[in-house]
Amino acid sequence: MFFASDNWSGAADEVMQSLTRHASGFAPAYGTSDLDLSLERRFNELFEREVAVFFVGTGTAANSLALSAVNRPGGFVLCHRESHLIQDEAGAPEFFTSGARLSPLDGPLGKINPAELARVLDRFDPTFVHRGQPMAVSLTQSTEVGSLYSLDEIAELASLAKNAGLPVHMDGARFANALVSLGVSPADMTWKAGVDVLSFGGTKNGCWCAEAVVFFDPARAKQLPYIRKRAAQLFSKTRFIAAQFHAYLDDDLWLRLATHANTMAAHLEAGIVDRPNMQLAWPRQANELFVQMAKSEAKRLSDAGVKFYAWPIPADYEGRLPDGYGLYRFVTSFATTQAEIDQLVGLIES
Amino acid sequence: MFFASDNWSGAADEVMQSLTRHASGFAPAYGTSDLDLSLERRFNELFEREVAVFFVGTGTAANSLALSAVNRPGGFVLCHRESHLIQDEAGAPEFFTSGARLSPLDGPLGKINPAELARVLDRFDPTFVHRGQPMAVSLTQSTEVGSLYSLDEIAELASLAKNAGLPVHMDGARFANALVSLGVSPADMTWKAGVDVLSFGGTKNGCWCAEAVVFFDPARAKQLPYIRKRAAQLFSKTRFIAAQFHAYLDDDLWLRLATHANTMAAHLEAGIVDRPNMQLAWPRQANELFVQMAKSEAKRLSDAGVKFYAWPIPADYEGRLPDGYGLYRFVTSFATTQAEIDQLVGLIES
Amino acid sequence: MFFASDNWSGAADEVMQSLTRHASGFAPAYGTSDLDLSLERRFNELFEREVAVFFVGTGTAANSLALSAVNRPGGFVLCHRESHLIQDEAGAPEFFTSGARLSPLDGPLGKINPAELARVLDRFDPTFVHRGQPMAVSLTQSTEVGSLYSLDEIAELASLAKNAGLPVHMDGARFANALVSLGVSPADMTWKAGVDVLSFGGTKNGCWCAEAVVFFDPARAKQLPYIRKRAAQLFSKTRFIAAQFHAYLDDDLWLRLATHANTMAAHLEAGIVDRPNMQLAWPRQANELFVQMAKSEAKRLSDAGVKFYAWPIPADYEGRLPDGYGLYRFVTSFATTQAEIDQLVGLIES
Amino acid sequence: MFFASDNWSGAADEVMQSLTRHASGFAPAYGTSDLDLSLERRFNELFEREVAVFFVGTGTAANSLALSAVNRPGGFVLCHRESHLIQDEAGAPEFFTSGARLSPLDGPLGKINPAELARVLDRFDPTFVHRGQPMAVSLTQSTEVGSLYSLDEIAELASLAKNAGLPVHMDGARFANALVSLGVSPADMTWKAGVDVLSFGGTKNGCWCAEAVVFFDPARAKQLPYIRKRAAQLFSKTRFIAAQFHAYLDDDLWLRLATHANTMAAHLEAGIVDRPNMQLAWPRQANELFVQMAKSEAKRLSDAGVKFYAWPIPADYEGRLPDGYGLYRFVTSFATTQAEIDQLVGLIES
Repeated sequence: MFFASDNWSGAADEVMQSLTRHASGFAPAYGTSDLDLSLERRFNELFEREVAVFFVGTGTAANSLALSAVNRPGGFVLCHRESHLIQDEAGAPEFFTSGARLSPLDGPLGKINPAELARVLDRFDPTFVHRGQPMAVSLTQSTEVGSLYSLDEIAELASLAKNAGLPVHMDGARFANALVSLGVSPADMTWKAGVDVLSFGGTKNGCWCAEAVVFFDPARAKQLPYIRKRAAQLFSKTRFIAAQFHAYLDDDLWLRLATHANTMAAHLEAGIVDRPNMQLAWPRQANELFVQMAKSEAKRLSDAGVKFYAWPIPADYEGRLPDGYGLYRFVTSFATTQAEIDQLVGLIES
Repeated sequence: MFFASDNWSGAADEVMQSLTRHASGFAPAYGTSDLDLSLERRFNELFEREVAVFFVGTGTAANSLALSAVNRPGGFVLCHRESHLIQDEAGAPEFFTSGARLSPLDGPLGKINPAELARVLDRFDPTFVHRGQPMAVSLTQSTEVGSLYSLDEIAELASLAKNAGLPVHMDGARFANALVSLGVSPADMTWKAGVDVLSFGGTKNGCWCAEAVVFFDPARAKQLPYIRKRAAQLFSKTRFIAAQFHAYLDDDLWLRLATHANTMAAHLEAGIVDRPNMQLAWPRQANELFVQMAKSEAKRLSDAGVKFYAWPIPADYEGRLPDGYGLYRFVTSFATTQAEIDQLVGLIES
Repeated sequence: MFFASDNWSGAADEVMQSLTRHASGFAPAYGTSDLDLSLERRFNELFEREVAVFFVGTGTAANSLALSAVNRPGGFVLCHRESHLIQDEAGAPEFFTSGARLSPLDGPLGKINPAELARVLDRFDPTFVHRGQPMAVSLTQSTEVGSLYSLDEIAELASLAKNAGLPVHMDGARFANALVSLGVSPADMTWKAGVDVLSFGGTKNGCWCAEAVVFFDPARAKQLPYIRKRAAQLFSKTRFIAAQFHAYLDDDLWLRLATHANTMAAHLEAGIVDRPNMQLAWPRQANELFVQMAKSEAKRLSDAGVKFYAWPIPADYEGRLPDGYGLYRFVTSFATTQAEIDQLVGLIES
Repeated sequence: MFFASDNWSGAADEVMQSLTRHASGFAPAYGTSDLDLSLERRFNELFEREVAVFFVGTGTAANSLALSAVNRPGGFVLCHRESHLIQDEAGAPEFFTSGARLSPLDGPLGKINPAELARVLDRFDPTFVHRGQPMAVSLTQSTEVGSLYSLDEIAELASLAKNAGLPVHMDGARFANALVSLGVSPADMTWKAGVDVLSFGGTKNGCWCAEAVVFFDPARAKQLPYIRKRAAQLFSKTRFIAAQFHAYLDDDLWLRLATHANTMAAHLEAGIVDRPNMQLAWPRQANELFVQMAKSEAKRLSDAGVKFYAWPIPADYEGRLPDGYGLYRFVTSFATTQAEIDQLVGLIES
């Protein structure tokens, strides 16, 4: 029973088949093959406008290159205290930007509090060089604690950023899960709401290794070919990424995989509600479920072979755990089966 | 007829099958799965000693991380003027080392002249801080112009490096092609000859995307886990690299693929010798063939659909091209067929 | 009436005279003159052991180079949330370390809470690469809010750092003011209490531009000559720094200047206690005075020509300001006169 | 007898007096004092247009920040093989630009050969990302071997740069010596000839430590305040630099000092011509004299207490030294006296 992370899954069948189909034959390297170029065009359709898109190998690379493209000396990025950027990338964004700072903002449910963002931006004094300068606002959709920004919430943060002259980056490692949960279009959830640069993740949702940085204003991406190459992210056989995205985007596979993952999470949620030793910590919105659970119960599940993670207590959850309880995360993926959910729920009920 | 580069090929069947086999099921992420760990151990056998091995996504990443691990402030890396490091990585080694310099050395056939290396090392004055300090010697096997260092030649350069207290890095993007051509063991061509860090390439020889940094003294690699993560090269579904290496190393596939590529190059060489409009520029040693050819002939081949590259004239070849001639590179790979060779030779003869 | 900062003062007479005395004649450049070397030795006496000392031009440079010397990939520096490193150096420490992070710790009166430091160090899991690794503890003496660590407090933090294998850096931009206030020796306040690297500041206390990075274990400083040169901090006419330090350290000038500054601050403190519109925010310990004051009163003083700064409210002071009040900082220096203090106190009383 | 370098001298009397004059009293820090601002304006007059000027502490800092301002990912700077940037800054330009490369160009007498510059720029293929992209042309005036570019030569290089869309940087560590030798105006030698960014050096010509980065198009300098602060080059008591420049520029002191240095060099040149053991290596143009000299003679002078440097043989001088000869540099400065010249010439004649 694997609920540790969606990246514990492998690759979807369609993705593997596409890779196999494109494995033979010769094609120009370094992103110049027909397949690469056609996939780049596919992103224009996906987002209903001309975009500049760059395939890279990891989500950390996508985030780091996106921020490199909007980098400023002495710059700081405004992002949530619990964001992946801050918590899980071992300083990669700082490294690729030669030292930009990630400035933590608070806000309930992993979402930036607009009032706090406004306060920080207000306080910025461009003549006081010692404190550095803001360079971007970065938000995560879905967030590190599985919640979602509504379109209005994205637009509100983006509007604050725009008024301060700042670009908005979206970390979309779980973009598809958010999208199908909100039931909106890729354009709605990004540039129409004010997002300028997107880390578009495929890996967690059925690809092996397929991430893209998407610029909604291609002019902003002019240095990206050099930034990507210098970052060692220009793969020679790029078609291995393109082939994954080909299957991923074809025939809405990506949306179907994400819908499945979310549905599995919903079933698990339904099986958990109101247990004596386990309660939802906050409502599930995509494919991640956070529960508070008696530590003894967590141990029982773990001993029975369930894989899941203990989770650090977010600031807005501090003091709310009953004695002897911990916070835990369960993640479903395209590969999670109903049988596995049933098995886990059965175990919980036993 | 594809002779532009060995990275125009896709993936070998066995590699694809291994990927497919490992695509289902769940496994811990970030290099901790059983498959990852078993492949890391496989490298110990391969090199007949305990090594520290780190999988990464590109050859540029492998080189950049290897040099990061031996980085010094104000450091410079001694490498051949025509090395990939200098010519083809858009400043990635400099970027990842926060500004180390790549100091070009000369030498015939893409190989560092030991006398020049000795001279540079001799000239170094550790009290004269302004000129920086040497930090590593990097050599490429097989070289950018398809030649090979003999074991003695490697040992000679390594000995000069060691006497100066410097580690030796080998860029082995075409390690297998060199190895089978020399008919020696991986240990012979590396640590037994004095190599400390190796960029071990699988991509050009039948993998999609599988490179490794290998440290022959694991103590030197202690910071690599952080260096790799910070460099955005720690893949989440690392087993997709491990699965490639699994097939690649299993049952000597890698050696067979490289032998095939070299053999194809040998056949092409045999078909080219002593043409009126085309001569070998220098002897082939692995899977790359360099020829001088009348530009009219090059155009004729190109018009007939042959893919190959014009090549910049190396310093030691300057002034040697007949009038109206250019220098050209033909590369074979695991995927090159005898039929393709025959077709090209037939075209040349026609 | 200048109380904005101790760096609004110029240079002490003795310092200027020393500069003038050394302005003529020739001397080897780049830190190799007799004067340079004798001053380096002078630091051995000062600290009662062999140290490695490097003169640089700014406090930000001293801090940044100190941290560069102990840098680790994915590293983070544990320092107080209100430290100069975090608040006032526009990302220089991050830049010079190619992206190390400054991790804010809390604690009352600008001093790191040892329990919080212990908690963070405890939480560190060396196998979880994603979160980075601690690389140093940095404390400021005197702190950004004018308070002092006692020797025991330094030793306690240093002991926690040592147990975690971390070096301790002290930002001593106001080292002298702290030293004379505590009445201890330079050795006591540094290596005897567990400090490994010191930013020793002369600029705020009577020099024009004289800072030093001091390593109490010279072995740790082996790369510093290159780090300093690469950081553009190796001055050609270094004797202009040495000449300042010569006067500064000679005949205890530095201690006398600091004592004067502290005394002036004490007099100002005495003149402020228990005013209706103005109270000490916390006790003064060196040459900085923080007061809470009615904003109307602050405006009155400012209109009368008093230079001083409004100060951001520290976390441990939040909610404590009466309505209509602000927090303000008054700094005295070697150049502050009793007449100026009297004038300000008279103005306050009026 | 000190001819090792112009940075072996101290500070000119007028510079010291100005420092002394401004040492007392209080003034805002970090470049905001009246003196700072008035000196910044003074540069507008000096260059007959509005410029953006930033005071820094070392020539290496000036060069590094100038290049940071025009930095591009994967960028390389075209400069002479023997330039200070390449030879004497221990990787600082590479470090501050996070890895830009310094691409060496050849050319006689330390001056970039325009034909070679044209060739390199021509060869650049913006679609071939692997080779990086040019980001600036940097020339040194006077050059590392004491020669001068004529205005036409500067204009020719600048025109090539402009056609390629590249900014031109001038390393003016010895700007004044070049200027008075050519007898032109600061505007003539810079922006009127096509220079965009200047490292304006005061240190070698009578200041302690006074360098400036001058942007002839202030729009290009918008990020410089942050770049400078982040580089630890924003001094707190900046007036100590401003006070030096105040004296330096006042009443043409800087031109008088440089004229003196050049004249002293001319006298030395006259005393050297046609000695049996010593000949001018090439004509002197500013304050540096290069001679070829029998090594025995060099030893005799050195033993007699003359300070001067052996110099590496430039590429265009290779093979021209008689047997038993070396190449040596003699530098004069504002502080060199006629008596010292006479003494040296006497010694040579003896």
